[in-house]
Amino acid sequence: MKRGVLISFEGLDGAGKTTQMNLLEAWLREQGVRYLRTREPGGSPLGVEIRRLLLNRPDVQISPLAEALLYQADRAQHFASVVLPALEEGIVVVTDRCLDSSIAYQGVARGIGAARIEELSLFATQGHVPDLTILLDLPPEKVRLRTDLAQDRHEQSHFDRESEAFHRRLRAAFLELAETYPQRIQVLDASRSLVEIQHDIQMLVADLLAR
Amino acid sequence: MKRGVLISFEGLDGAGKTTQMNLLEAWLREQGVRYLRTREPGGSPLGVEIRRLLLNRPDVQISPLAEALLYQADRAQHFASVVLPALEEGIVVVTDRCLDSSIAYQGVARGIGAARIEELSLFATQGHVPDLTILLDLPPEKVRLRTDLAQDRHEQSHFDRESEAFHRRLRAAFLELAETYPQRIQVLDASRSLVEIQHDIQMLVADLLAR
Repeated sequence: MKRGVLISFEGLDGAGKTTQMNLLEAWLREQGVRYLRTREPGGSPLGVEIRRLLLNRPDVQISPLAEALLYQADRAQHFASVVLPALEEGIVVVTDRCLDSSIAYQGVARGIGAARIEELSLFATQGHVPDLTILLDLPPEKVRLRTDLAQDRHEQSHFDRESEAFHRRLRAAFLELAETYPQRIQVLDASRSLVEIQHDIQMLVADLLAR
Repeated sequence: MKRGVLISFEGLDGAGKTTQMNLLEAWLREQGVRYLRTREPGGSPLGVEIRRLLLNRPDVQISPLAEALLYQADRAQHFASVVLPALEEGIVVVTDRCLDSSIAYQGVARGIGAARIEELSLFATQGHVPDLTILLDLPPEKVRLRTDLAQDRHEQSHFDRESEAFHRRLRAAFLELAETYPQRIQVLDASRSLVEIQHDIQMLVADLLAR
């Protein structure tokens, strides 16, 4: 059986990942492609518990290193119990965030070090990386407008309250990753219309599936 | 102010760690020593949540890598928020388990690799190791007798149900660590009387505090 492929969506909160993942999901279904939509953190039963600790427990203070290791524990479980078994079965796995988020958030923006977090991430994924990463790129000032509109979202993470400087570091980190891995990471200008972005994503995924 | 010292207790479940820590605690109090008793996992509010995931959620399956990373997240939080601040204040910190348990359990007995888990542990502790580690050594067949007697303990971890072969690997791993770090890790024969063991521990701790 042909091995499945792993596609990750990356970018700042508010860059439009969820909308574009919805559109990709509808398109994959139309094409009759077997796919699985998942996310980090929270893509496994254990991950749901870890996600709750990371994002929904303002009463629990978490040190930067502990936070980084919790994300990696979530990832290790996600790959071992969800992602790798699905790829084995030939399924297309689409994940909302993956290792690039850890490198950008914990490695660069939180200052732990990109190389260190990348090494930890590869330990957690057993050496696997996505076959295609779609980076929805948007300047922080545009992202802020979008999250302001979405203020009543059910799940407000503490990242939403970070400063604009933090978001600038994040964006720079993502763009640097895209320069380091130009084959894997495709940068899409997320300030364009939904339809234009959607079209680009379909082209990239169709190309990947045809390989 | 003189920096505090970190003392860890290690050994198989049932080797008598709790009893000896109780005795050491009473002795430290008698001596007027400022001390803090803590444990891994579960030595911080975040750690209590992680401990619950690791040991009290039989419904949540955890992969070996995710388990190893959760222990490290607990350790990172423990050191950042409890151990290192206490040492800074000159307090004697006594912990039930520390990095040697991770090396023995996840590194050796679970097969992830001792060197890898040691490296992760030093990342989590920010490079710190205990000043003194007391290894209560007991052959697995004697340990089993003790845990059989304690079957109605409130908290039965899944480790209690592991095979004797697993416990033999664990014991060998602890003893190998003691050979690698003879200055730090003191091996005590835990098959002797409580009083004899207690005496040895007091001598070791008195010696450490006098340095």
